[in-house]
Amino acid sequence: MIKKLLIANRGEIAVRIIRACQELGIETVAVYSQADKEALHVRMADEAYCIGPTSSAESYLNFTNIMSVATLTQVDGIHPGYGFLAENADFAEICSACNITFVGPSPEAISQMGTKDVARKTMDKAGVPVVPGSDGIIKDVEDGVRVAEEIGYPVIIKATAGGGGKGIRVARDEKELRKGISVTQNEARANFGNPGVYLEKFIEDFRHVEIQVLADTHGNTIHLGERDCSIQRRLQKLVEETPSPALTPEKRKEMGDAAVRAAEAVDYVGAGTVEFIYDHTGKFYFMEMNTRIQVEHPVTEMVTGIDLIKEQILVAGGKKLTYAQEDVVFNGWSMECRINAENPDKNFMPSPGKVEMYLPPGGLGVRVDSAVYPGYTITPFYDSMVAKVITYGETREEAIARMKRALGEFVIEGVDTTIPFHLRLLSHEVFVSGDFNTKFLENYPLKPESDDE
Amino acid sequence: MIKKLLIANRGEIAVRIIRACQELGIETVAVYSQADKEALHVRMADEAYCIGPTSSAESYLNFTNIMSVATLTQVDGIHPGYGFLAENADFAEICSACNITFVGPSPEAISQMGTKDVARKTMDKAGVPVVPGSDGIIKDVEDGVRVAEEIGYPVIIKATAGGGGKGIRVARDEKELRKGISVTQNEARANFGNPGVYLEKFIEDFRHVEIQVLADTHGNTIHLGERDCSIQRRLQKLVEETPSPALTPEKRKEMGDAAVRAAEAVDYVGAGTVEFIYDHTGKFYFMEMNTRIQVEHPVTEMVTGIDLIKEQILVAGGKKLTYAQEDVVFNGWSMECRINAENPDKNFMPSPGKVEMYLPPGGLGVRVDSAVYPGYTITPFYDSMVAKVITYGETREEAIARMKRALGEFVIEGVDTTIPFHLRLLSHEVFVSGDFNTKFLENYPLKPESDDE
Repeated sequence: MIKKLLIANRGEIAVRIIRACQELGIETVAVYSQADKEALHVRMADEAYCIGPTSSAESYLNFTNIMSVATLTQVDGIHPGYGFLAENADFAEICSACNITFVGPSPEAISQMGTKDVARKTMDKAGVPVVPGSDGIIKDVEDGVRVAEEIGYPVIIKATAGGGGKGIRVARDEKELRKGISVTQNEARANFGNPGVYLEKFIEDFRHVEIQVLADTHGNTIHLGERDCSIQRRLQKLVEETPSPALTPEKRKEMGDAAVRAAEAVDYVGAGTVEFIYDHTGKFYFMEMNTRIQVEHPVTEMVTGIDLIKEQILVAGGKKLTYAQEDVVFNGWSMECRINAENPDKNFMPSPGKVEMYLPPGGLGVRVDSAVYPGYTITPFYDSMVAKVITYGETREEAIARMKRALGEFVIEGVDTTIPFHLRLLSHEVFVSGDFNTKFLENYPLKPESDDE
Repeated sequence: MIKKLLIANRGEIAVRIIRACQELGIETVAVYSQADKEALHVRMADEAYCIGPTSSAESYLNFTNIMSVATLTQVDGIHPGYGFLAENADFAEICSACNITFVGPSPEAISQMGTKDVARKTMDKAGVPVVPGSDGIIKDVEDGVRVAEEIGYPVIIKATAGGGGKGIRVARDEKELRKGISVTQNEARANFGNPGVYLEKFIEDFRHVEIQVLADTHGNTIHLGERDCSIQRRLQKLVEETPSPALTPEKRKEMGDAAVRAAEAVDYVGAGTVEFIYDHTGKFYFMEMNTRIQVEHPVTEMVTGIDLIKEQILVAGGKKLTYAQEDVVFNGWSMECRINAENPDKNFMPSPGKVEMYLPPGGLGVRVDSAVYPGYTITPFYDSMVAKVITYGETREEAIARMKRALGEFVIEGVDTTIPFHLRLLSHEVFVSGDFNTKFLENYPLKPESDDE
């Protein structure tokens, strides 16, 4: 079992991990950049060490300094959180070489899922539905044209090493495809050092539905149901909920089983998420697997009662899963709004600054995961998320009503936040109906004047 | 249905009720004393009116002023919260006379349960176990001596109009009894204007186990399980939890059924609590019924998912209960610590003052119900509770670990609080074992030096 854990992250996820450790009786070591010396995770951890200047590359991504702190403080585990080093196979490898437990899957599993065309093939072989497309990387433009004719336009050109919305391009006809392939190859070569691209049928209208999985080192893999993350702006998730308004219990089981097969195919260990494209006919296709904990994990915790971070830490230490699939019971509905320090009415311009007044919402069915406190200064250097507000209700209607109530009472003064945007969303009839897809915000930009409440 | 509700209370319970109203789409009217003009409930309500000076008698207990505001603002309901007017049958009567829905039971039910010897008889008739004792008010001292010999010493002398720890006296032999009866009668005449006393067998070592009931105007009454409130200091509850570490599922059903019979016997409507003495042999006896919502209601909400305040408001408006008995499912464990602005190491001396820094705990399984905000001044005029911290866990162990974590991160600067006391309690091996009764704090006063962690 892990007795002392280094948290190689910052912000709310570092606080979240420290909380789980405190409840498990595990000592905690925080690391921080010079910009973060007043951060909450630094105050909450048992020990804290500066690992470099503001720049992430020199601090939160700095292998050497992080491993130095780990060795110095004699931790026996490192939790990478999400982002930064969470899906870095090399870092996982180094931890292993230093005899420190990396709280996550094996370096091999990270690599297999991180290389998109490899992941696609592995999934196909494991019987997980994949979008029709090329059999791996296309040889050349002519090969691409042949594949596109086979699967039909529109198609999407994807860099195998891409991610985060980069190295992706849609082609609606042969002309766009020919141009798109070379542009994407060049972009991929420049950005990721790997020019390989592959093709997939482009599915235009879909919901983003993902399945949470959990696996131990004893061969047990379970799923904890789905999260619907279709409310996105420029591929960034803004609101997540579980269950998905679109899924039937049969479909949940079908997708859950597919996600378990996906995890088993790479001998997955720990918490992971299999993301699916869910089309309007109810078909679903593998999108990618995130080999780490996700920002939106709390909604799953609210409806299952299972503490995902604790389970992550326990299985990383070699413990068997606390739950079998039949122990996982889903109760009620949960929703998460990511509150960012941005001005939604100025094109989501970041709004760093000092938080003069801060009072998070409370009461029944409201959870706040945040690293902000009164007097804390939000820096412009990292992501702009200031709090995750999570609500629970017996029904979707109650979860929404409670979210409106909670956001209405949330006091953050000194910076702009996206709370007004979320309040507009929560009152929008299409959102309330539950019948929407990832194009929702393109179709309904939720300008102040579009608020028809 | 109630469309506009006046909240005849202050502090966290006023905030709690406003939150429920916001989620139900009900307009809210707050009332406040001059001392409370900066209070959170005043800021959160849609409208707020001053009803008098600091003194409760002239403000929160002032029928005339409260009814004036109710009439002026045209509310169709009044929620009394707990304390103040919550168990005042006359106030419930006046509401009814003004055609305003009182969120609570009928004046008759309040009276029947408020007069202790009447309640005792009613319960006995309804088949709810009562402690052996006199058949109503004793005629005179000789009658008392005869009853005491019948039921055996020690006995307890209770004023029928008593409450809140007043008008109660234990007698261990005939001499103490003879003296005690006349003293208690005189005290009761002076304090409550009613000298009537009755006798009960005194049960020394018991747990305080109470059952939450919920009833509508359509004849449906259900129970929502128990709360164990054995951790008390001078009859004031400090920590409550559900389930009780002492109960089996069979005993829960037996006590639940008895509580439902108790409520039905007085045609109860709304949320109420039947308090029981639970002795070390597993026998239970009716103690009293609180005809209102209780401070500790949140732990029941955490394990059932049922919003008690919403249900209260809905059934007061004539709606049928949302749940049948078989819909009530208990998940996990919940615990509440009442945090007071008192110094536990100076005999719990009140510590009013300005809260300079305030950051409530957050994250998974933590709920805070409070009316405090950064910069708020806690006055010395009302009760000293500043926050209820409620945790949820899959097990009692997890609920305790989470409570320790939550209290550890709770920041309240500027006043003393009972947090250090609670932390000592949560680490005490007898508390952790679950095997304790209402004498726990007498036996283990939890002085700083007794902290053996």
